[in-house]
Amino acid sequence: MREGDPLGEILAAAVRRENINPSTGDVLVIAQKIVSKSEGRVVRLSSVVPSAGAEAIAARLRIDPRKIEIILRESRRIVRAEWIESAGRGVIICETHHGLVCANAGVDESNLDEPDTVLCLPEDPDASAAKIRADLHQMLGVDLGVILTDSFGRPWRVGLVNVAIGVSGVAAIRDCRGQTDSSGRLLQTTELAVADELAAAAGLLMGKLDRIPAVLVQGFRADAPPGRAADLIRAPGGDLFR
Amino acid sequence: MREGDPLGEILAAAVRRENINPSTGDVLVIAQKIVSKSEGRVVRLSSVVPSAGAEAIAARLRIDPRKIEIILRESRRIVRAEWIESAGRGVIICETHHGLVCANAGVDESNLDEPDTVLCLPEDPDASAAKIRADLHQMLGVDLGVILTDSFGRPWRVGLVNVAIGVSGVAAIRDCRGQTDSSGRLLQTTELAVADELAAAAGLLMGKLDRIPAVLVQGFRADAPPGRAADLIRAPGGDLFR
Repeated sequence: MREGDPLGEILAAAVRRENINPSTGDVLVIAQKIVSKSEGRVVRLSSVVPSAGAEAIAARLRIDPRKIEIILRESRRIVRAEWIESAGRGVIICETHHGLVCANAGVDESNLDEPDTVLCLPEDPDASAAKIRADLHQMLGVDLGVILTDSFGRPWRVGLVNVAIGVSGVAAIRDCRGQTDSSGRLLQTTELAVADELAAAAGLLMGKLDRIPAVLVQGFRADAPPGRAADLIRAPGGDLFR
Repeated sequence: MREGDPLGEILAAAVRRENINPSTGDVLVIAQKIVSKSEGRVVRLSSVVPSAGAEAIAARLRIDPRKIEIILRESRRIVRAEWIESAGRGVIICETHHGLVCANAGVDESNLDEPDTVLCLPEDPDASAAKIRADLHQMLGVDLGVILTDSFGRPWRVGLVNVAIGVSGVAAIRDCRGQTDSSGRLLQTTELAVADELAAAAGLLMGKLDRIPAVLVQGFRADAPPGRAADLIRAPGGDLFR
């Protein structure tokens, strides 16, 4: 996958080649990596001049200062930047311009075919998802939900899980507030992050080394209106972990 | 489901009734709630005398002091206890004695048939999973993986997702460290939380009001040895969000 490659067309061709018959309402979960590549979100490290601030963080975390510079450009806020003695490595966790909180602001260097390059998240993943969805609709004649996914670490828990960073045509949240449970008790706070659960389910098949960049989920009914990945970003006022 | 009910038998009967033919290696994901009920982890609020500390927290968060008392008994540490003005409610996030970080230390009051009661997490969810697995093996003749799941909120992201709080006979983590990606780059940190992704996938079907307490996952191959939910707890030394 290279910049300008027609991702919608390539995915539609794969669906036909695999003899899959998707139905309206099915959800195609797509790895962020191929979307970012098709959108040309590759940055050549040798083209980057790190700022003094990036140099200082890089020295402390023992990470390439050019990579830190790119991470800072992708970020609106550094959440943590620490050397982890027990792991023998530096970690930088940022809030991206989209409001996503993740390691390296999503800047990634794995599974890239060219050396000296890193890959950034799509600039507007909800818009990317909507564009792919429209292209697939035109080419396959069915209105699929589309989720762009990346694998994120979590506080307190070991291991990565896939989450939804872009959503179109499928629920992001299923809001159960105002409904009553089986014992008649009013649910006051329950919202389910269904797009994240769909992304996690697809993550089981994508692995990290398996080079499976898209997974079709069939038979899912959200019982909730379509949303955006932006719906999954917690507002600062209700966020206890800023 | 009541204290002492034979959960393994009940699940095995359900599998037979639904004409499901599980194979060795399939994974049964079970809602924590029915496990806790069968283990008698119900506490009657009227039986609880709150400590002065519980009373103080309860007044600040506007939560029943007896519920706070139960939450504190289930916890080794309060992570956050705050009144959220924008939501008009108090939130208490604790680290349980198992090392799980979650709202109310997992103490739950939804979908309980009796008033005046709350439900605590199983005392040893990995042991509970192992017990259910052994019972199912005996009754069905197949060695299923078993995951106990509960729905947790997350920092920064809206909505609950199901995670694995007990694991037996299936991988908790798929450790990719030391492997090389498609471009020959060594993966230094990649661990995938496969048990959490299995739980999240099952969460899509369990919903919150749907009263589906168990989901069978078929065809999953972890490429990793069986683990425990304890493997998913991050050690304090590597935890940036204590």
